[in-house]
Amino acid sequence: MKQAIGVIDSGVGGLTVASELIRQLPKESVIYVGDTKRCPYGPRPKEEVIQYTWEMVYFLLERNIKMLVVACNTATAFTLDELREKLEIPVVGVIQPGARAAITNSHTAEIGVIGTEGTISSGAYVDTLKQINTAIEVYDLACPRFVPLVEKGIVSGEEAYQAVNETLQPLKQFNEMDTLILGCTHYPMIKELIQEAMGGNVTVISSGEETAREVSTILEYQDKLYQGNESPEYQFYATGDVEVFRRIASQWLNRAIDEVEQVVLGG
Amino acid sequence: MKQAIGVIDSGVGGLTVASELIRQLPKESVIYVGDTKRCPYGPRPKEEVIQYTWEMVYFLLERNIKMLVVACNTATAFTLDELREKLEIPVVGVIQPGARAAITNSHTAEIGVIGTEGTISSGAYVDTLKQINTAIEVYDLACPRFVPLVEKGIVSGEEAYQAVNETLQPLKQFNEMDTLILGCTHYPMIKELIQEAMGGNVTVISSGEETAREVSTILEYQDKLYQGNESPEYQFYATGDVEVFRRIASQWLNRAIDEVEQVVLGG
Repeated sequence: MKQAIGVIDSGVGGLTVASELIRQLPKESVIYVGDTKRCPYGPRPKEEVIQYTWEMVYFLLERNIKMLVVACNTATAFTLDELREKLEIPVVGVIQPGARAAITNSHTAEIGVIGTEGTISSGAYVDTLKQINTAIEVYDLACPRFVPLVEKGIVSGEEAYQAVNETLQPLKQFNEMDTLILGCTHYPMIKELIQEAMGGNVTVISSGEETAREVSTILEYQDKLYQGNESPEYQFYATGDVEVFRRIASQWLNRAIDEVEQVVLGG
Repeated sequence: MKQAIGVIDSGVGGLTVASELIRQLPKESVIYVGDTKRCPYGPRPKEEVIQYTWEMVYFLLERNIKMLVVACNTATAFTLDELREKLEIPVVGVIQPGARAAITNSHTAEIGVIGTEGTISSGAYVDTLKQINTAIEVYDLACPRFVPLVEKGIVSGEEAYQAVNETLQPLKQFNEMDTLILGCTHYPMIKELIQEAMGGNVTVISSGEETAREVSTILEYQDKLYQGNESPEYQFYATGDVEVFRRIASQWLNRAIDEVEQVVLGG
């Protein structure tokens, strides 16, 4: 079997990244592991997140992946450097690609970031942006209402728009902000509402799209893009309820997912 | 001195790439070599382009660059694989970043490419796009009038718009084309005219911006982003008239370039 791109996430959010990998790299196979049983990682201690992440990584290494995508903001913040140091395959996280795309896009150097409480309070996006350009002004905002909305499937209509619009009000005072990073893998599901609330002068950057783009960059750079004629395969594993996962995956990926395998990690 | 990013080009076109490197990576130093005396490379035989490119590469390797950017479409098409194979530092070309950004942006998978006669007839963009996704429909068009316009400084006003609009007519029949790649490093200087001629439904992708983005991706991936507090330095070398180069560089980079050094390449 051809080598796949491995994607790990604390749950279903990383499916927006997998969806973009499938769209932008249609020759590549993808194996996805969602640790839905122990989701969310945000409130967990750092050591626990590192341990759970490694359990998913070992599971995928046994399946001979050629690249690892850490499609979880919390896991990226806590494990990216260590994974890059210890693994022989390339590792890409979800924070840096979105940050870089924002820098490319922004001509005012005033950039907004929205995410969960955990991601925003970690300061990971601010650090990444400032590491590249200290002069960038970053406006960040935690949006704790968004993940529950998306997980309940309320991704369009008046109720969803109201919630999104209300939440984003604090960002509207920054007239020079021309770019907004969706710093949570759930948010691409409500990207249109966010765009509508922010208005046409703000470009909304989806980390899923940008992560897939950088996976492509690094695969090509390492001469590891798949060149053959075999069809791609997509495999999904979850630590929690596989039927729930299958339903969400079919909806988010906009294609019928026939099988999700149960996986037991840890202990 | 801190290690710089080296940029090579057949002439002045690559300054749009240098300009984006300076904007997106303001901590990094840049050394630019323009082979203005032997410009353009497009009509030259492959072996000659390879030889000239290596002459610039050796010149920069002596200056201890940490990364090489081949900011010339012709040189990228002929030398990228060989340079990557033989050099120990990372090498980025201008074709792949634009192609990848177009794939990320396009939701119809119908993509336009404009460039010089040489670039379009080489098929390099079509090959790169199809290598990643065979299903992409590519519409390419050579625009031989654009480089002379830019080099004469006719980058706005009615005459320039007329020329751009007339030239792009053949692409307007493709209603599903949602993305257009500027496959020539001169074209960002007339990006606004091209955008106006194509209308608001087409996203115009500038290879300069996207190349700088991928330089950032690969420097971060290789842990080579500059982390210190020294100010960046910018050095410019040209094989042809240094005063002409200095004037164009000051204009394109929108900053005063005080000195351009003469360099003699080749036997």
